[in-house]
Amino acid sequence: MNLEVWAPSAKSVELVTPQRRVALRRLEPQSATADGYWRAEVEPALLADGYRYSLDGADPIPDPQSKWQPDGVHGSSYVVELPAITADFRAKPLAESVIYEMHIGTFTAQGTYAAAQAKLPHLVDLGVTHVELMPLATFPGTRGWGYDGVYLYAPFPPYGRPQELAAFVQACHGHGIAVLLDVVYNHLGPDGNYLARYGPYFTDRYKTGWGAAINYDGPNSDPVRRLIIDNALMWLRDYGFDGLRLDAVHAIFSFDAMHVLEELTTAVQDLGETLGRSFVIIAESDLNDPRLVQPRRWGGLGMDAHWADDFHHAVHAFFTGEQQGYYQDFQGLADLVTALRAGYVYQGRYSPHRKRRHGRPPARVAAHQLIVFAQNHDQIGNRAQGERLSMLLSVAELKAVAALTLLAPFVPLLFQGEEWGAKSPFLYFTDHNPELGRLVAEGRSKEFSSFKWQGEVPNPQQEETFTRSKLDWSELAQPPHADLYQWHRQLIALRRENRAGGKVTVTADAQAGWLKFVHGDVFCVFNFSAAALRWRPPRGRWHLVLASDRDQTSPDRLPPHATLIYRR
Amino acid sequence: MNLEVWAPSAKSVELVTPQRRVALRRLEPQSATADGYWRAEVEPALLADGYRYSLDGADPIPDPQSKWQPDGVHGSSYVVELPAITADFRAKPLAESVIYEMHIGTFTAQGTYAAAQAKLPHLVDLGVTHVELMPLATFPGTRGWGYDGVYLYAPFPPYGRPQELAAFVQACHGHGIAVLLDVVYNHLGPDGNYLARYGPYFTDRYKTGWGAAINYDGPNSDPVRRLIIDNALMWLRDYGFDGLRLDAVHAIFSFDAMHVLEELTTAVQDLGETLGRSFVIIAESDLNDPRLVQPRRWGGLGMDAHWADDFHHAVHAFFTGEQQGYYQDFQGLADLVTALRAGYVYQGRYSPHRKRRHGRPPARVAAHQLIVFAQNHDQIGNRAQGERLSMLLSVAELKAVAALTLLAPFVPLLFQGEEWGAKSPFLYFTDHNPELGRLVAEGRSKEFSSFKWQGEVPNPQQEETFTRSKLDWSELAQPPHADLYQWHRQLIALRRENRAGGKVTVTADAQAGWLKFVHGDVFCVFNFSAAALRWRPPRGRWHLVLASDRDQTSPDRLPPHATLIYRR
Repeated sequence: MNLEVWAPSAKSVELVTPQRRVALRRLEPQSATADGYWRAEVEPALLADGYRYSLDGADPIPDPQSKWQPDGVHGSSYVVELPAITADFRAKPLAESVIYEMHIGTFTAQGTYAAAQAKLPHLVDLGVTHVELMPLATFPGTRGWGYDGVYLYAPFPPYGRPQELAAFVQACHGHGIAVLLDVVYNHLGPDGNYLARYGPYFTDRYKTGWGAAINYDGPNSDPVRRLIIDNALMWLRDYGFDGLRLDAVHAIFSFDAMHVLEELTTAVQDLGETLGRSFVIIAESDLNDPRLVQPRRWGGLGMDAHWADDFHHAVHAFFTGEQQGYYQDFQGLADLVTALRAGYVYQGRYSPHRKRRHGRPPARVAAHQLIVFAQNHDQIGNRAQGERLSMLLSVAELKAVAALTLLAPFVPLLFQGEEWGAKSPFLYFTDHNPELGRLVAEGRSKEFSSFKWQGEVPNPQQEETFTRSKLDWSELAQPPHADLYQWHRQLIALRRENRAGGKVTVTADAQAGWLKFVHGDVFCVFNFSAAALRWRPPRGRWHLVLASDRDQTSPDRLPPHATLIYRR
Repeated sequence: MNLEVWAPSAKSVELVTPQRRVALRRLEPQSATADGYWRAEVEPALLADGYRYSLDGADPIPDPQSKWQPDGVHGSSYVVELPAITADFRAKPLAESVIYEMHIGTFTAQGTYAAAQAKLPHLVDLGVTHVELMPLATFPGTRGWGYDGVYLYAPFPPYGRPQELAAFVQACHGHGIAVLLDVVYNHLGPDGNYLARYGPYFTDRYKTGWGAAINYDGPNSDPVRRLIIDNALMWLRDYGFDGLRLDAVHAIFSFDAMHVLEELTTAVQDLGETLGRSFVIIAESDLNDPRLVQPRRWGGLGMDAHWADDFHHAVHAFFTGEQQGYYQDFQGLADLVTALRAGYVYQGRYSPHRKRRHGRPPARVAAHQLIVFAQNHDQIGNRAQGERLSMLLSVAELKAVAALTLLAPFVPLLFQGEEWGAKSPFLYFTDHNPELGRLVAEGRSKEFSSFKWQGEVPNPQQEETFTRSKLDWSELAQPPHADLYQWHRQLIALRRENRAGGKVTVTADAQAGWLKFVHGDVFCVFNFSAAALRWRPPRGRWHLVLASDRDQTSPDRLPPHATLIYRR
């Protein structure tokens, strides 16, 4: 088999295995491509016990494109054989999707692909169409969120073997569920990151908040792009994933005529056509920029959808009343109405938190191009105590939040356990080396130093911080969780049956505290106040199908904090 | 009159004049805008002898929006009264334009607006439609190219008073010539730059090669954008300019949903509609990115045109055979043909000089959206000896270059004196303070240290380096300059009469060394070789109108290095 590695500045590259060393041959530079690729043809058996590369005779280091790092970020690299993917699965289009964000390590007690696989009947019952896995690219230690990955091609060993990941994806497909993967292409983690020794993967021309920016547009950036784009293609082609969620694309700096994300979406689309499959690329972005999801012919980057944080912030600020940090930008019912109508609250107006005007109108952005949520790993986990909304709101309020999110015209995303109002927190946990771990813990403490009222910040490095974040599945059968679960399940079913075209009509009265919206065949009314309101039910063919508090509901009365849902 | 200044961190701001000090009042922050504006209403007479601002009681410094700095970059600021602009001038559309790049300081011996104004009949005779002035924003010292400006609103004093600049623009209009201004919005010069004391005008999130990047997208960037955009509007509205050439927009970092250049083009267009005038915005960009000139509805930035350096490089490398620096990316006749056909040579192929793929196809870019040139201030002045092509090529070759540039389907730009093959160099000259001057001179020497064969680098700080760069108008009447001048004049006339739609058909033979192209009613054939070639003239209604070497031209023969031009 051929081994290939890019090391443009090296004078020599050797493959180092327990058995022997093999010199790689530098490929002749071709006028049409970057220089600095090295190659060797070897017997697969030579790699069976792992391998590394030695550049210019230095200590051998892992392969930046390692497929498997069973001994962690500083261990040897391994090649991986995966079974062929059967291509007969068809994912639901985004317009009909409900996404479920899952962190393999905390979704089950065991924290493995296999254990997660055993829970798939639950997701089928709930009605979600897509699972979205938090990042798998190997990161340091035995637990973590995954945003400090350094081996983009090697799935995190504690979750299971690569073959088990492929089996998980296949099992999802068997249950009719598509699988998305969260990939981090804006930076790499600090520990176990040997890329800079190989070549100019990073640049100081731009800054990110998390680490060196990736060199997507400077000299020698073609092979850097290739590392990233080939990685995207690998997950889709070799593991069978149905799409990718690109973490924080606003920190991907590609200031050239062909943005790396446009190149990526084009490559993914080409792969889909080759394989007869259909992939989706979803951006996490805080830019409120329609260009991300505009087709290339309109000057866009051609991605399928992007996360719309404004919806979350408007919902969260309205229900919790919180005004710290970015929540200060969201005020009352008016912003919630805008979020429901347009997805973007900030369309160019001044943001006090950002201290500048922000966003632009979502012109020609379809509702199914915006992913909305009332909770996600970040919004829960970036709180000092990792509180879910279930710890901040009443059951009635949780039901209202769920109805707003799941019946809105956008594509809803639930965070694992949200469907039953899980009480386990989702804390920030890490397992860094002691030195880095201390810095992370200190940074975390400092970050929340002005929020002392939120209590002592759990140490991310303590194992308990991780174990406390695991879902407690025993809750599911208990009140009020069982009721909340049924509520979510019914809303998802209602959403599925709704013949909606993305159009929504919203009316609200901030004074009285109510809001109603019509979306296709669904009519929702919310009483946000603590007082009962008089109510004249909609006329015509509308009939009441769901009420958050059925016992107290009567035809002409909205109980406090009630949500009523009609269909026609 | 109202004085206003933005100083968000200041606790107090005082106006300081020779007569007295006046405290400014901090405006109430409004939810819709940035905080930190200060204002005072004063009698105009109070400002007659200049003014400065003192922030928090510190030494008074000039106004960042000073309209006039007669005593230089460290001197007091002055207000300016300009006569009203008459709006009856109509510039030629770009498709019918020939631009003439002018540096006021070297265009004439006197180096003033008034002296340049006296030369306008020459430009009328030549047939150019637009004058483009190199930057006027006040920069340090008494001479310079102008790219180190620090007072964006104050025209450089040695060229004349603001009223004389306005008179120059009006005189151009009187001669039927439009006037563009080169403005530098990617950085500010290092000396006399007090902006950082006022507010966060700069950022370290991005890097430019010339100085701190301007804060266009971070916290408190709205007032920074306002400084720049209001500046653009001022030149157009108050001085009567017909458009702007934006220097190096690839170093303008605006990584948000509303790029500052889109905001700028929108504001300029709105001003044009208000005033009943039509303005053009031309970008200098090395990105080969159509998005710059695509309309906003196609996801573009809405600028009218951009400089197409590839055309220059292809022409220069072909005629001079030079391969140093970026010329290594341009090889022979093939790239010249591509340049003529498409404007962009690099449409995504690998660039050895940049060490990455570069550019994208100029889809939906009209020919009149690309500004081309065989010479400009940079391409001449960034050579060690500031040599014009007239010092590198024969008269016959200069004629070929002129025909390629002026008859191509793009918008041609000439650099002052190019029309007669001026022999004066255009050197890099500065007049910095001694310390900065030493650094600049050393940097300049070092930059060319690997090009020793180009000879000793003139010291930019020496006055002689400036005076040597002034045009020698006495050349114009002498051979071969008079002949070259007539050649340019005739080509421009031919271009003007040509009913062309931007379409061009090019054929060439690298072996034999000829190229021909048809563009509208014009047919050009070039013999690039040192040998005469057999030639069958075009049939039909074509008739020969210009020949670079008429004496040696016969119907069936192309003399060495000849250019023949036919019309129908």
